[in-house]
Amino acid sequence: MGRYKLTLEYDGRGFVGWQRQDSGPSIQQALEEAITAFSGETVVPMGAGRTDAGVHALGQAAHVDLAREWPPDEIMGALNHHLQPNLIAVLSVEAVDDDFHARFSARERAYRYRIVNRRGRLALEEGRAWWIGPTLDVAAMDEAAQVLVGHHDFTSFRASHCQAKSPEKTLDELSVTRHGPEIIVVHARARSFLHHQVRNLVGTLALVGEGKWNADDVAAALAARTRTAGGPTAPAGGLYLVRVGY
Amino acid sequence: MGRYKLTLEYDGRGFVGWQRQDSGPSIQQALEEAITAFSGETVVPMGAGRTDAGVHALGQAAHVDLAREWPPDEIMGALNHHLQPNLIAVLSVEAVDDDFHARFSARERAYRYRIVNRRGRLALEEGRAWWIGPTLDVAAMDEAAQVLVGHHDFTSFRASHCQAKSPEKTLDELSVTRHGPEIIVVHARARSFLHHQVRNLVGTLALVGEGKWNADDVAAALAARTRTAGGPTAPAGGLYLVRVGY
Repeated sequence: MGRYKLTLEYDGRGFVGWQRQDSGPSIQQALEEAITAFSGETVVPMGAGRTDAGVHALGQAAHVDLAREWPPDEIMGALNHHLQPNLIAVLSVEAVDDDFHARFSARERAYRYRIVNRRGRLALEEGRAWWIGPTLDVAAMDEAAQVLVGHHDFTSFRASHCQAKSPEKTLDELSVTRHGPEIIVVHARARSFLHHQVRNLVGTLALVGEGKWNADDVAAALAARTRTAGGPTAPAGGLYLVRVGY
Repeated sequence: MGRYKLTLEYDGRGFVGWQRQDSGPSIQQALEEAITAFSGETVVPMGAGRTDAGVHALGQAAHVDLAREWPPDEIMGALNHHLQPNLIAVLSVEAVDDDFHARFSARERAYRYRIVNRRGRLALEEGRAWWIGPTLDVAAMDEAAQVLVGHHDFTSFRASHCQAKSPEKTLDELSVTRHGPEIIVVHARARSFLHHQVRNLVGTLALVGEGKWNADDVAAALAARTRTAGGPTAPAGGLYLVRVGY
């Protein structure tokens, strides 16, 4: 038997998310079918993170076990072939030890959230970014973001249906930077995140950018430990799982 | 009467190109319909450049004449509303003098061509870039590009059906740069271009990047003044009209 680590890029539109569901096509199912098509084996790929419907990945990680061993390059070529026309690309395949687990071995997950901040609506970035018309105060957003960095109870920023046992997480990085006149990027990095945590943090920081909230309001929302105290959930299309560190 | 200059972004997929054609939806037609929807007037917008099917724009310019005068902001809001769900965004609207002409007043057109150079196929960049698997020699491409800069007869790089009277053009810039490990960008800048010129130049530079041609081969192709001497036409999806200068 061989265990293989896959690194994946995908466009989250048109998928119900990473995880297989009856309600529509998932990344996991498309990958499973591509694996069966080339190997004849039926295996369930395990992903590092369950991205939601419409959320993209530049570097999702997953592992699969195959009864027969294959050269990693051959797996990569075959999967990229059989994944067509799905907008899922296998960027690398590595043979790994049996104790490697895409989800449980992960030490760090990095997300990026893209905001297009301009008067004109989206065209090329439709479904790939959050459009906010009024000019945002990026410095205020970045300052408020620092209130959220560290070990906290993030109940105010977790989805009400989040299944994690504990609402406590350590947020290692949350930064807001401007890239050219129109693009604002939020970087978030932690060992793991609660359900909708990044999107809820970004929705909250947008309130700060619009001048409706300040850093003290964000601190108060964090301390309240109730979802209703946090800001709104930013749209799925702006979120990218960038990298999973092991 | 008022003349207005529009700056447009669009996703070229799903369109037959800028120009109205019977064969399918065009940017020009979508814009014309949006103008009629808000103003009740039937006018034909004039574009700075006729982008082909699948070619994108970050800053196409166009002008329209309206019998009634409107505040530019109102035109912008109304067009962005009525253009939905087309992936066309109006980024700015300015009132201009009657002697402004989007096509004939243009002094410079800047294009960008995106290549994704990696082993894994495209997912998020599908239809937005040209995928080339083998590693390209970017320095060799940029060196060969300099052979093409300047005033030349570009017959070897114009579409056989190009309608321009003269094949002579002055190419002010052609540069090839790497952006991170995967992205290669070709910048091209000139007062005007022949039909398919940028895509034919990029297809030729790709031959250099792959080591099949060198700068001398490019110079020989240019000197041959026949389309069959030039390289292949790069795919439409990698090309972006970035800016029109007046």
